[in-house]
Amino acid sequence: MPKRILVIGGVAAGPSAASKAKRTNPEYDVVLFEQGEDVSYGICEIPYYIGGDIQADKLVVNTPEQLRERKGLDVRVLHRVEELLPTKRKIVVRDLVSAKTFEEPYDRLIIATGSRPKKLNVQGEDARNVFTVKSLDDGFRIYKYIEAEQPKHAVIIGGGYIGMEMADALRARNLDVTMLHLYGLPMNGLERQVREHVREELEKHQVQFIGDANTEGFVVDKQQRVTHVVTKNGTYEADLVILALGVVPNSEMAKKAGIRVGASGGILTDQRQQTNLDNLYAAGDCCEVKNLVNNKSMFIPLATIASKQGWVAGENAAGGKAKFNGAIRAIAVKVFCLEVARIGLSSEEAQASGFTVVTETIVAPCKVAMMPGSEKLWITAIADKRSKRLLGVNMIGKDGVVLRANTFAVAIQHKMTIDEIQQWDLAYSPPFTPLWDPVLVAANAMAKKLR
Amino acid sequence: MPKRILVIGGVAAGPSAASKAKRTNPEYDVVLFEQGEDVSYGICEIPYYIGGDIQADKLVVNTPEQLRERKGLDVRVLHRVEELLPTKRKIVVRDLVSAKTFEEPYDRLIIATGSRPKKLNVQGEDARNVFTVKSLDDGFRIYKYIEAEQPKHAVIIGGGYIGMEMADALRARNLDVTMLHLYGLPMNGLERQVREHVREELEKHQVQFIGDANTEGFVVDKQQRVTHVVTKNGTYEADLVILALGVVPNSEMAKKAGIRVGASGGILTDQRQQTNLDNLYAAGDCCEVKNLVNNKSMFIPLATIASKQGWVAGENAAGGKAKFNGAIRAIAVKVFCLEVARIGLSSEEAQASGFTVVTETIVAPCKVAMMPGSEKLWITAIADKRSKRLLGVNMIGKDGVVLRANTFAVAIQHKMTIDEIQQWDLAYSPPFTPLWDPVLVAANAMAKKLR
Repeated sequence: MPKRILVIGGVAAGPSAASKAKRTNPEYDVVLFEQGEDVSYGICEIPYYIGGDIQADKLVVNTPEQLRERKGLDVRVLHRVEELLPTKRKIVVRDLVSAKTFEEPYDRLIIATGSRPKKLNVQGEDARNVFTVKSLDDGFRIYKYIEAEQPKHAVIIGGGYIGMEMADALRARNLDVTMLHLYGLPMNGLERQVREHVREELEKHQVQFIGDANTEGFVVDKQQRVTHVVTKNGTYEADLVILALGVVPNSEMAKKAGIRVGASGGILTDQRQQTNLDNLYAAGDCCEVKNLVNNKSMFIPLATIASKQGWVAGENAAGGKAKFNGAIRAIAVKVFCLEVARIGLSSEEAQASGFTVVTETIVAPCKVAMMPGSEKLWITAIADKRSKRLLGVNMIGKDGVVLRANTFAVAIQHKMTIDEIQQWDLAYSPPFTPLWDPVLVAANAMAKKLR
Repeated sequence: MPKRILVIGGVAAGPSAASKAKRTNPEYDVVLFEQGEDVSYGICEIPYYIGGDIQADKLVVNTPEQLRERKGLDVRVLHRVEELLPTKRKIVVRDLVSAKTFEEPYDRLIIATGSRPKKLNVQGEDARNVFTVKSLDDGFRIYKYIEAEQPKHAVIIGGGYIGMEMADALRARNLDVTMLHLYGLPMNGLERQVREHVREELEKHQVQFIGDANTEGFVVDKQQRVTHVVTKNGTYEADLVILALGVVPNSEMAKKAGIRVGASGGILTDQRQQTNLDNLYAAGDCCEVKNLVNNKSMFIPLATIASKQGWVAGENAAGGKAKFNGAIRAIAVKVFCLEVARIGLSSEEAQASGFTVVTETIVAPCKVAMMPGSEKLWITAIADKRSKRLLGVNMIGKDGVVLRANTFAVAIQHKMTIDEIQQWDLAYSPPFTPLWDPVLVAANAMAKKLR
C-alpha cells in the first residue's frame, strides 16, 4: 500500500504543499480537500480583477482537473474537513454536495486551512452588499454586484493594505469611496510620516479617509441592502461595503485536536513545519511564523510565507528534510500612484523587542535626478543603536521603491549592520539609479546618526 | 600652519576625496588640481546628454566656484600636475594658461588622476570627426559636431557598455549606426546567450553590428574628416566615429615616483586607500581594487567605486579611519529597450579563479504575469558547486532588472549560498513582483542543479 498524505485547504499553502509532496515522492498518494469550489488561485490578484486590470479567467492558476493531470494530485473540492482524529490517524470529512460525512485515514496530514476575515459583529453585516475580499468567490460576487447594480457610494471599512487595494480598484470603477479606519491614520505598522503620506495620496485620488471611525452598525433597507454605515462620529451613505479588517487563523479544529497554537491563535510549528503531534504538519495563514528580526513567533498572513511553508511541509511530509527558517515580514502595496513597502520591524515593535531604536528618513531621486521620469522616494530606516543592525525600513515613492525594499530585506534577514550596507557595491546607470543609490544614501545618513 | 592636503584630479574620485577631507577636518587646507576646465561632472550622463535626455547645464554637479564656496576647497583648474616628489613632499604643477611650472608642498597627497580612453594606434585616429566619450569636453564636442555638421553615418568602434549607450544616443539623433567590435558578440564579459540577446536588440533598433572587426585604419579627406573606416573584412562609410575601446589607468606619474602598481597598471592601495608611500593616497580609476568575489586585485573603472574610494581616501588623509573593503563589479547598462546587468564574476572568470562553475538560466515575469505591463526577464546565475556560493549573475529584460540585480549584488558581496537566497523573505504585490520573485525562481532552479 502506498503511503497517504492528506492536505486540508486548497488555496495557497495547500496546493503548494500537495504538489511538493507528490514531486518529492511520486509513490505517495496525495489527496487535497477544499471546502470551496475553487483551488489554487491568486487571492492577492482579486482587487486587480475588480479594478479591471486582470481578466477573470486568469485568476485560477490550476483547476482541480489540472492539479490532477499535471501534478498527480487527488483533489476533492466541496469537501469540508470537520474534525481531526490524530490518535486514529484519520480525519472526518463532509461532502458538501451529499452532506454526508466519512473518515479518511492518513499517514501524514498537512493542515493548510488558511485564515478568515475578521468581522465587526454588528447588525447588518450580513446584508447582500457587504463583502469581504478573501476568496475567489468574494471577488466574483463583488464584480457581479458592481456590474449588475451599478453602486455609486462605496464604504471600505479598514485602512490596511487590502483597504488600499480596494480603494484603488473601486475608484478605477468610478465609485465614490469613503474609507473608515479605527485609527487616525491608515496603514497601522508604518511609521507616522509614511502613514500621513498615504493619507494624502488617498485624498489626492478622492478617497474620503475618515480616521478614528468605529463602525457601530448599518442601516439596511427592505431589499437586504445596506444604505448607510453608522459610526459614533457620523453616518455615511453606502450602496457597497467592503470589510477589510484583517484576518484570523483558521486553527480551531487543530486546537481542538490537541495541536499547540500561539497567542495569535496560529498553529505553532518547528522549522520543518511539523506541529507538536506526530505526522502532522501545518503551513500558511493558519500558522504562526518565527520573525527573524526579533525571534518572536508571530501571525504574519502573507502569500509569500504560505507558499514557502507549503513547500517545506510538503517535502517533509513526503520524507524530505526541508527547513523554513522564518520570515521578516516583507510587505508591498500600491496606493494609487505610490509604491509603499514595509520590511521588518516598525520602530514601535523594535522598541518593544528591547532594541535601542534610532530612525532616520531620507529623500532621494529614484534615478539620476536630471533624467526624464526621475521621481523622489522616501526611506525611513529603523536601526538598533548598540548593534548598529538594520531592523526595518518603510519606503514610499512613485517608482523604484519595492525592488529596492527587497535589497534592504536581504540586509534585515541577514542581520547586517549599517556599516556593512554602506560598503555595498551596487550597479549604477543613469536611467535606473543615481550614482549613490537611495539605499546607500539611507545607510550613510543612518551611519552619521549612529555615530 | 594648518596641514595641507593636495588632490590631483577633479572629475569623480578627486572632488569626492577633497570634499570628504575638508568635512572630516575643516582646519586642513584642501587644494584640488585639475588639468581640464571643468570639475565635478557626471561622465556617465554624457551619452544621455548627446541623445537628448539631459540638458547641458545639468551635467556639472559643482563648478570650481561652487566647490570653493560650498565645500571650502581651493580648486585650480587648467593646472596639470607633472611630477610627484614624495621625498620632498612636493608636487610639480604646470599652470596651463601661463605655461609656467612651480612646486606645491603637501602634508597628504591624494592621487585621483582617473583613466583615459584606449587608442587604436592607427592612422587617421586624430581626425576631427573621431571622438572618445571620456570628458565633458568630449560630450560638448560631439554634440556640437552633430548640430553643426549633421552627420548621417556613425561608426562606433567598440561594443562594450559605452558603445551601447552611444548607439542608443546616436540612433535617438537619427544617425545610421554601425558598430565594429573585435569579437563575435557585443559586451565581452557577459555570458554567451546574454550577448546574443544584446546583439538582437541592437539589430532590432537598426544598429548594424559587425563582429570580429579589427579596425585597420581610416580614410581621411582634405578637411581632416574620416569618410570611411577600414577593417580587414570591409570598409564602412562614416562621417562620425566614436572610439569606445575601454580605458587605461592614468598611473604613469605615480609609478615613476615609486608608487606600486598592479598588472593592469592601476595603483595598488590598502583598504585605507593608502599607497606604499607615506602620506600618499589614491582613489578612483587610476587604482586597482580588490574583487571581493575572488579576492584578486583588478582594474574596475566604475564611478560607484571611484566615489567610495574618494570618500575613504579623503577621510583618511584628513586623519580619519575609513575603510573600503573592495568591490564585486556591479554593472548596469540600458541597451535600447533592455535593462542589462552584470554582477560579480563571469563563468569564465569563476573558472579561472578555481571555482567549480555551475550556471543556470531562468526566464520569469517581472511582475504577476497577468498584470498589464508584465515583461519577461532572464537571469543567468553563476555558482560554485562545492561551496554553493553565488559568484555572479547576468540579467536582461525590459523592466525590473537592474534593481533586482542589486539584490543579488548583496548576496554576492556577502558570499551567500544558494540555500540562503532560497530562504529570502521578499515583498510581493501583483503590480510589482510575482509571488515567487524571479530572484527566488533563479535560486530554486540553481538549487536543483546543485543537488
